[in-house]
Amino acid sequence: MKIKASSADLYADYVSRMRKIADIKNSSALLQWDQETYLPPKGAGFRGQQIATLAEIAHELFTSPDLGNLLEELNCRDDLGDAGKRNVELSLEDFTRQKKFSPAFVRQLSECVSRSFHSWIEARKANSFAVFEKDLSILLDLKKQEAALAGYSAHPYDALLDEFEKGSTVEKLDKVFAQVRDPLKELLDRILAQGPIDDSFLHKWYPRAKQWELGLELIRDLGFDFEAGRQDLSEHPFTTSFNRDDVRITTRIDEYNLANMTWSCIHETGHALYEQGLPAEYYGLPLGEYASLSIHESQSRLWENNVGRSRSFWKYRFALLQQHFPDPLGKSTPEDFYRAINKVQPSLIRTESDELSYHFHVLIRYELEKGLIGGTISVRDIPAFWEESYIKYLSAKPLDDRTGCLQDVHWSHGSFGYFPTYSLGSFYAAQFFATASTGILASELEAGNTRGLLDWLRNHIHSYGRRFTGEELCRKATGESLNTRYFLDYALAKYENIYKLQGNAS
Amino acid sequence: MKIKASSADLYADYVSRMRKIADIKNSSALLQWDQETYLPPKGAGFRGQQIATLAEIAHELFTSPDLGNLLEELNCRDDLGDAGKRNVELSLEDFTRQKKFSPAFVRQLSECVSRSFHSWIEARKANSFAVFEKDLSILLDLKKQEAALAGYSAHPYDALLDEFEKGSTVEKLDKVFAQVRDPLKELLDRILAQGPIDDSFLHKWYPRAKQWELGLELIRDLGFDFEAGRQDLSEHPFTTSFNRDDVRITTRIDEYNLANMTWSCIHETGHALYEQGLPAEYYGLPLGEYASLSIHESQSRLWENNVGRSRSFWKYRFALLQQHFPDPLGKSTPEDFYRAINKVQPSLIRTESDELSYHFHVLIRYELEKGLIGGTISVRDIPAFWEESYIKYLSAKPLDDRTGCLQDVHWSHGSFGYFPTYSLGSFYAAQFFATASTGILASELEAGNTRGLLDWLRNHIHSYGRRFTGEELCRKATGESLNTRYFLDYALAKYENIYKLQGNAS
Repeated sequence: MKIKASSADLYADYVSRMRKIADIKNSSALLQWDQETYLPPKGAGFRGQQIATLAEIAHELFTSPDLGNLLEELNCRDDLGDAGKRNVELSLEDFTRQKKFSPAFVRQLSECVSRSFHSWIEARKANSFAVFEKDLSILLDLKKQEAALAGYSAHPYDALLDEFEKGSTVEKLDKVFAQVRDPLKELLDRILAQGPIDDSFLHKWYPRAKQWELGLELIRDLGFDFEAGRQDLSEHPFTTSFNRDDVRITTRIDEYNLANMTWSCIHETGHALYEQGLPAEYYGLPLGEYASLSIHESQSRLWENNVGRSRSFWKYRFALLQQHFPDPLGKSTPEDFYRAINKVQPSLIRTESDELSYHFHVLIRYELEKGLIGGTISVRDIPAFWEESYIKYLSAKPLDDRTGCLQDVHWSHGSFGYFPTYSLGSFYAAQFFATASTGILASELEAGNTRGLLDWLRNHIHSYGRRFTGEELCRKATGESLNTRYFLDYALAKYENIYKLQGNAS
Repeated sequence: MKIKASSADLYADYVSRMRKIADIKNSSALLQWDQETYLPPKGAGFRGQQIATLAEIAHELFTSPDLGNLLEELNCRDDLGDAGKRNVELSLEDFTRQKKFSPAFVRQLSECVSRSFHSWIEARKANSFAVFEKDLSILLDLKKQEAALAGYSAHPYDALLDEFEKGSTVEKLDKVFAQVRDPLKELLDRILAQGPIDDSFLHKWYPRAKQWELGLELIRDLGFDFEAGRQDLSEHPFTTSFNRDDVRITTRIDEYNLANMTWSCIHETGHALYEQGLPAEYYGLPLGEYASLSIHESQSRLWENNVGRSRSFWKYRFALLQQHFPDPLGKSTPEDFYRAINKVQPSLIRTESDELSYHFHVLIRYELEKGLIGGTISVRDIPAFWEESYIKYLSAKPLDDRTGCLQDVHWSHGSFGYFPTYSLGSFYAAQFFATASTGILASELEAGNTRGLLDWLRNHIHSYGRRFTGEELCRKATGESLNTRYFLDYALAKYENIYKLQGNAS
């Protein structure tokens, strides 16, 4: 007679397997962190190989039939408790998705990504999209195959969107962008009709060591736990996490651009606070993971924009800045500073753009990806589509491929469907912020104190891990689904005030 | 009909498996490096778990029956070429050793090591060996089991010695130590009968940033490739390598001890030059590994002592030191410096001792380990044996357990049999150095130029990887087996000169 294993035993086995896989993925994340921060140049070749090996092993372990059977069995048990049930459900979902891709397909894709990343680098050097075109085409074909393997009901792009943001579809995104496109364009036009704000004092000389110090003070001030994380320098700022107790952010310093370092620190701290707030008891399990990429981005953007570019945040902190930099900032007022850091000026480069025109950069990429995956735009047409769109939305023509369609690394990584999460993140951020910042919390923020806001985020977002989807979390935290009105209201109120725009044209 | 696989195909399979295992081990080495350099305090718990997971996976892959069969099959092929044949032979040797230990035993040992390390830390804090005693006893029992499982012909300690230095036995080590013990003791006594050398200027204030700079200059000067490695700070200096192109060393800085940083840099650079000189084409295979721990240590000690504490090395470089530190060094001569850095003064602490009394520290540990593993000394007797030995050999009585038998981390890691490789390293170093530094190379070294010496080491030691054992390599490079006369001659000549000892008493 076969004795039926107890749910507790099966669940313990599941947890132990998942933690082992998490250990491997987190080891790989450290290898990648090191690659961006401290790796000596010649070490890059072997490092790539080591990362690939860890990825392969993690994939093997996660798609093993044993784990599959275990998940199926656990999914039938009704004595796991809420959290246990949800963990198993989500793991089974991940498993089912992963199993759709054969190891051969995964390897093919990973090799193609390596090649594409290389040719993207080469194309940037040569300032020529043509150099990237061939590998991008092959990669795109593989991504179409991926979409077909993953499955979708309406649009093949849905299958890729879903990977970064569960439940995200072309239908929904079309609606979201339709809601913001015209109001934002109109606001942008009204702003640009005014004279530009003078932000030249932000481009004076800000010594490296002092900037580094300021960054650390700000990060600490926002609530980042330096016992459970650190900051280092890298070429492109990023956040990574190896577990709740080891969350790392990076920044970069341009001695003639104070804003660059400052808002990269605040943005990455937003991501990091989320990671440091995930429940430690669920390490390696879905409930210990972040909800979705949009929600992750909502945390960075909430701190970067709704808090970090607010008048009240700097009212008391501007004195700190002046202490650090008496020369360039001695003669400015907090109001000068507030206006300068919110200067609106469309740029050709997404990562350098203001918080309004930013969404047109995302919209252009979204429309392009939709067409590429849907088959209505061919790879060859990318530069032309790019130019046309930038003229249409931002009245700006790319100078060349480098400032045009070669500017982002995402496609070379095979990340199609990622960009929209940036805009969703801003829209969620506005909605969360509006919901949180009422009553006492509003007065605290007015006084420059952000601790209550962090508590609110910990309670309403961070502590749930991946228990809810982005949409569910939003409804739970704010009482309604994603509503772009919050973002538009925030944008209108803020920029009409800053630019002293007459009346409300919308 | 079953078609026999070609040797080339089988060998390629073997290489690919070994490289995968190497990738995992090297990933783990990065996690450990990070643990000593940049890990935030709270991250230690999960990090330990991640390292354990990688170790478990590497062990699983390396002891898989598939790999065993592959190695057996390849070992019968005669068309692998010299290097291929040797790789397979060594891997099979490693495999056979590893297979002697069941996964359960490996886990038991690893868990015991974790506990022992923790109680060693606690014992150090409490300054009480008693706190460490129980876990050390359990660990020692496991190490005896390990010796029994590994097998030996004469003494159980042989089985453990062999792990760090193939072919090393009690019989051989007894002979080696018998050769050096009395002559060294006699030299030490003659030196101590003289007045002490004044090295107080080495303990003036040497600012941190300047020491860091000096260290980097020295390391570069010795030939370390900073494109394929880096230096960082850690509490205890060490060298680690993730492949030939990414070799990392660490140092520490005491602002009132210039020698501490300087010789830690030179010592670790010696280790690093060896790693940077291993053949890259054999990554992951035995021929890409170092020959043995003694040989590794010979490289660090050769640079640290035979080069780094020589008169000629500093004749030209002392001016550089004076430039960095005009205050504390402005009034000293190169000869003052040379004498100060070679001051002989027995210490209670192994890592702080001079290059002569050092070997008594090792001898004491060797005799103790031999007795512990052989069953003639019990764990409880360690402190008494320690005290007695220090009085006998170094006329110094430990102040307490912390400056006595709790000073080294090795036992808490389960590393019994490791210490002797330190002395063997010095003896090999003297023999290599004497062989290399003749003719043109001698004149180069006299002129402070070490490049020819590095080339010699690359050609005679580094490039062979693990193709030969330490003993074989020594015969090949110097024409004879390990001969302690080289070390004794070096020591006598050097210290009779420094201390102006009358006549040769030996």
